[in-house]
Amino acid sequence: MPTNRTTTQIRLTTRPVGEPADSDFTTTTEEVPELTEGQVLLRTVYLSLDPYMRGRMSDAKSYAEPVPVGGVMVGATVCEVVESRSERRAVGDLVLAYTGWQTLAVADARHTRRLDPEAAPVSTALGVLGMPGFTAYAGLLEIGRPKEGETVVVAAATGPVGSAVGQIAQLKGARSVGIAGGPEKVRALTEEFGFDVALDHRSPTFRDDLAAATPDGVDVYFENVGGPVAEAVTRRLNLYARVPVCGLVANYNATEAPEGPDRLPGFMSRVLTLSLTVRGFIQSEFEPTLQEPFLREMSGWVRDGQVRYREDVVEGLDNALEAFRGLLVGRNFGKLLVQVGDDPTS
Amino acid sequence: MPTNRTTTQIRLTTRPVGEPADSDFTTTTEEVPELTEGQVLLRTVYLSLDPYMRGRMSDAKSYAEPVPVGGVMVGATVCEVVESRSERRAVGDLVLAYTGWQTLAVADARHTRRLDPEAAPVSTALGVLGMPGFTAYAGLLEIGRPKEGETVVVAAATGPVGSAVGQIAQLKGARSVGIAGGPEKVRALTEEFGFDVALDHRSPTFRDDLAAATPDGVDVYFENVGGPVAEAVTRRLNLYARVPVCGLVANYNATEAPEGPDRLPGFMSRVLTLSLTVRGFIQSEFEPTLQEPFLREMSGWVRDGQVRYREDVVEGLDNALEAFRGLLVGRNFGKLLVQVGDDPTS
Repeated sequence: MPTNRTTTQIRLTTRPVGEPADSDFTTTTEEVPELTEGQVLLRTVYLSLDPYMRGRMSDAKSYAEPVPVGGVMVGATVCEVVESRSERRAVGDLVLAYTGWQTLAVADARHTRRLDPEAAPVSTALGVLGMPGFTAYAGLLEIGRPKEGETVVVAAATGPVGSAVGQIAQLKGARSVGIAGGPEKVRALTEEFGFDVALDHRSPTFRDDLAAATPDGVDVYFENVGGPVAEAVTRRLNLYARVPVCGLVANYNATEAPEGPDRLPGFMSRVLTLSLTVRGFIQSEFEPTLQEPFLREMSGWVRDGQVRYREDVVEGLDNALEAFRGLLVGRNFGKLLVQVGDDPTS
Repeated sequence: MPTNRTTTQIRLTTRPVGEPADSDFTTTTEEVPELTEGQVLLRTVYLSLDPYMRGRMSDAKSYAEPVPVGGVMVGATVCEVVESRSERRAVGDLVLAYTGWQTLAVADARHTRRLDPEAAPVSTALGVLGMPGFTAYAGLLEIGRPKEGETVVVAAATGPVGSAVGQIAQLKGARSVGIAGGPEKVRALTEEFGFDVALDHRSPTFRDDLAAATPDGVDVYFENVGGPVAEAVTRRLNLYARVPVCGLVANYNATEAPEGPDRLPGFMSRVLTLSLTVRGFIQSEFEPTLQEPFLREMSGWVRDGQVRYREDVVEGLDNALEAFRGLLVGRNFGKLLVQVGDDPTS
C-alpha cells in the first residue's frame, strides 16, 4: 500500500524501435530510501518533456549516456522539497532538479537550484527561463549571430525553443519568420509571439510561401526539426548563412536511412558554394559563459513582456508517454509539461 | 597566319553535363588589342588547373559567376610581361595573373602581382605559395583550429591543398593522417610530406585502416573530396570536431542526386549529437586578414624545407582539358600546372 514515501516511476524496459510504445516502459513503485547528509527528498510538481529524451531512449553514440535499460526515464523537473538534510534547502522550497519521470526522488541538494516563485512562475524554469530558452538564446546568439536586418527562420516556432528564437532575433534587430503546423499555431506566431511572418508547413503552397516570406533569402536557419521543412529552408540560404542545429525531431523515430535519392552530396555542395556554417550544439556547451547573461537578460524580457511564452500542461505522470509521442509529431502547443503533483504556488 | 600578337584561347562553348568533353570547348585564335594606359600584355608561362574550375563551367548558384558560354576558360596564371603601358610592371617581369586558358592576354597591371624568382620558383605562386596553399592555411587554422595532439585527416593528400594541410597541422603540433589513391602516392605521403600515417582509399581494408590510424578519433577533417572517403572519415569524428569544406571533387561531375539511401538525415544526426562544426569556405573570404601572415609564414616554411610541395607539369595548352579531366579523378600527382610557354627563370 502506497505511503507518503512511495514513489511511482516510469522505467525504460526495452529500447524503442521507431515510435516509443507503451510496451517499452514499465510503471513501478518503490519506497524511497532514508536521506543521508546533504540530501533532500523531492516531490515532483512539473516534469518537462523535451525532444532530446528520444535520444536517451536509444544507445546511438551521443553527447550523453543513454538511459540504461531498466532505468527511470530522465528529465528536468520542478519539485517541492518535502524533507531536507541539507542546509542549502528547506522543506517547502521549490527547486529545479533532474529527477526524471517519477513522483518522489532523493537528490543531492547541490544538484538542485532554488526557484523564486515571486520572480516568475516556477514552471518557466523548465521552459522560457530554462533549458529550452537557453538553447534558443545560446544557439541564436553564439552560432546564428543575426545582424540587424537579417532574416532568421525557425520551425516548431510555437515551441519553447522556436518561440524564443524568433522573439530574441527581433530584439536583436533581425526579421523573424516562424514555421508551424496548422492554422491555430500559425495565427499564434504573429498574434502571440509577434513573428514578422508565419508560415504553415502543412500548406500545399509552403515552398512558395517561404520564398515569398524571404525575398532576401535566409541568413540564419535555426534547425530544430529536420525533414522536409529543413530541406525547403536550406534552398533559401544566403552566402555565409549560419545553421545552428539543436534538434532534428522529424528524424528521431527513424529506424533506418530513408530511401533515396541521396541528398547529402547536394547539401554539402550548398555548404561549399554558399560558405555555410552548420553547427550542432547542446546548450550545456555554452552554460559556463552564457548562463548568467541569459538569466539576467531573458528574465527581464519575460518580465517586461518582450518575450512571451506558452505552456501546454498535461495532467498526471500516467499521461507522460502519450504526451511525449505527441511532442515528436507536433501535437503539443507550447512548452510541454506534465503536472505530476500540486503546484503550491499556483 | 599567327603573329607574335596572336593569342590561342580555349573557350567554353557548351556547359558540360557530367565529365567535361572535348566537344564542350573550342580553341580559337585572335589578335590581342593594342594596350591602353595602365595595361600590360602577358605571355602565359604556367596555367594552374584546379578543381573549382568545374564549378565555373556550370551555372549552378555559387559564390562566383560561371564562365559565360563562349567565354575563355578562367584560371590563375604565371605570366611574363611582354609589353607594358604601366609604370607598375616592366617588360620581363614575371607576374601572377588571372588570364585563363590562353597564351597571350591583355590585363590591367593592377590585377597582377609581381613575383620574385629569387625567393621561390615562380610556379609556386600557383601552388604552395598561392591559392591552394592559402586554402590549406586559412581553412585549417581559421576553421579547423587543430590543437596540439589532435588528429587531422585530409584526403587528396598529395595534392597542393592536402599536402599543405598535413604539414601545417604537424607544424601546429597535431597528428596528420593523409589519404590518397594508390601505393605510389601513399608512399609519398610519409616519405615526401612527412604525414604521421598514410592510407590508401582504394584498399579494400580502407575503413579498418582508417579506424586503426585514428585510435582517438578525428578532430579535424579537412574536406576536399566528398564521396565514400568523406563518408568513412565522418564516422570517426569526435565530439566538437571541425570540418572545413573547401571542395567536393568526387561530386563535381555528378548530374543528379545519387541513388539512396538518403544519407542526409544520418549526417545531420551526427552534426547534432557530436556538436560538429561544418563550414564551407573559399579562400578569398580570409584574404583580407590572413594573406599577409600566410605569405610570411609559408614562405619561411618552404624555404626551410618544413613544408614540401610537389608539382605535376603538363606541357602545352592543348593538353589542358585532358589534364583537367584527370584532376577530377585523381590522375595527377601534385599541383597540376600546364606549361603554356617557356619559363625564363628555369
